Amino acid sequence: MRIVVALGGNALLRRGQVPDAQAQVDNIRVAMRALAPLTDAHDLVITHGNGPQVGVLAIESAADARLTQPYPLDALGAMTQGLIGYWLLQALGNERPYRQFAAVLNQTLVQAEDPAFGNPTKFVGEVYDEATARALADKNGWQVKADGTGWRRVVPSPQPREIIETRLIDGLLQQGAIVICAGGGGVPVVLTPGGDLHGVEAVIDKDLSAALLANRLGADRLLVLTDVPAVMEDYGTDRAREIRRATPEQLRALDLPAGSMGPKVEAVCRFVEEAGPGAAAAIGNLEQAEALLDGRAGTYVTAR
Amino acid sequence: MRIVVALGGNALLRRGQVPDAQAQVDNIRVAMRALAPLTDAHDLVITHGNGPQVGVLAIESAADARLTQPYPLDALGAMTQGLIGYWLLQALGNERPYRQFAAVLNQTLVQAEDPAFGNPTKFVGEVYDEATARALADKNGWQVKADGTGWRRVVPSPQPREIIETRLIDGLLQQGAIVICAGGGGVPVVLTPGGDLHGVEAVIDKDLSAALLANRLGADRLLVLTDVPAVMEDYGTDRAREIRRATPEQLRALDLPAGSMGPKVEAVCRFVEEAGPGAAAAIGNLEQAEALLDGRAGTYVTAR
Repeated sequence: MRIVVALGGNALLRRGQVPDAQAQVDNIRVAMRALAPLTDAHDLVITHGNGPQVGVLAIESAADARLTQPYPLDALGAMTQGLIGYWLLQALGNERPYRQFAAVLNQTLVQAEDPAFGNPTKFVGEVYDEATARALADKNGWQVKADGTGWRRVVPSPQPREIIETRLIDGLLQQGAIVICAGGGGVPVVLTPGGDLHGVEAVIDKDLSAALLANRLGADRLLVLTDVPAVMEDYGTDRAREIRRATPEQLRALDLPAGSMGPKVEAVCRFVEEAGPGAAAAIGNLEQAEALLDGRAGTYVTAR
Repeated sequence: MRIVVALGGNALLRRGQVPDAQAQVDNIRVAMRALAPLTDAHDLVITHGNGPQVGVLAIESAADARLTQPYPLDALGAMTQGLIGYWLLQALGNERPYRQFAAVLNQTLVQAEDPAFGNPTKFVGEVYDEATARALADKNGWQVKADGTGWRRVVPSPQPREIIETRLIDGLLQQGAIVICAGGGGVPVVLTPGGDLHGVEAVIDKDLSAALLANRLGADRLLVLTDVPAVMEDYGTDRAREIRRATPEQLRALDLPAGSMGPKVEAVCRFVEEAGPGAAAAIGNLEQAEALLDGRAGTYVTAR
């Protein structure tokens, strides 16, 4: 089978961990040991998040104007593709030294007229008090909003429309390589009126990009991996129970808790709605990746 | 022909320029406009330096211990492969939208017993006074040395032995892609006694890595591109003249000025000495890349 995997942030950093390099290398080693068996029997594309990592780089890049002006988010996103891509490449290679792995940089097309550009909603970087946040906003051209605990920078999170390097990735799979790409949802670019691609100040939801990539590659499975065993019905109540099988219609009718489960559910719905017969998606625990493929674990999603 | 190009630092930053993102994007656009015609008739692999970029990231990463511990050089090098690889990918794609380009992360094998690890010689990062340098050395476990104008951190620069992703890159060329890789000489890794690859605190000379890659790929040409028209004989004197054709024997007999021409000359020598008949290397100006291929410009180097 051809499988696209979206690695949750917990594969890189446990909740509350400081984003030091060694902690991430150690976590990734464990995660890739869990994922490596999938590469023995299947063609695999691995995507990953970059939230904490791009947040750290944004702060570091803005810290000292004597060094450089703050780098834009497309450049910072590309840096995280390099950093995390290298760690994944090395860890997977150490698990399966005889296989071929390709960590490729990629651009994800968004639309300049996406309404997200007029309504930034994605929080990045540190938490400030209101005065500091407003001062930084003036100085750096940021938009800032209250996020409940304090004030933070917000950036647009437009919809992914195309994975520019789709043909390349397809060719790599045909060549027998396991592909690491679309980290952080891909580097966000728009098409200028002159026909050029140009980076933009935005971040893209990695699960939605993974779904788009899975559709464009004609994948058989999209696995959205995280640290919970399945999507839960009546989450947070004493009637809470795992949803084991669902259609997009059923999932979309759920009253999901805030946080990251929303984009994950939207991603698996989009994939199975557009994919051909026989395709399926699953949300579940990284350690159960193989069992997710045929519904033996996790929430298994099919078009009907 | 199959061509490996080593881009000099001037393709990214002019002498004296601050390493802001926009300056590099602008320079890269000009450089890729000069290089794009080569992609019309040839298979191309593009490598690049990362000296100023990895220096900035090393400083930023060590600046605020509240955020993270300083990242090691392998991680910082991977970040520059992501950053610069993305910029090159986008600029080349904008010049030739119908071609396929692949920016791949790569690891370069060095030997743990390389004498460079006992004698670090490559300066990275900022210039300090002696007391500050020694304090930073104690705090961060750095080695520091006087570099003429002040004190700086020095890191090992071991010899590149293998490009781990050679087979992948060869497959990409066969698939018709133009490949961007081995930035900053590749991320330096050693083979542990247990058989794993593991990143190390080192930097690799990008021209020497480009020569190794060119040999392993069976390239027809290695072009070492810079901002001077050719290697000069009696450089800095009134007898100075361009060397237009040379063998490794002749080049190695030269009394070269200090600086970056040494590794460039060593790289072209190594390539032609190991390459098959018909192979050639050249050192010259980026803007004359096409004329360098057959000795119409630059210093053209053949085995005999």
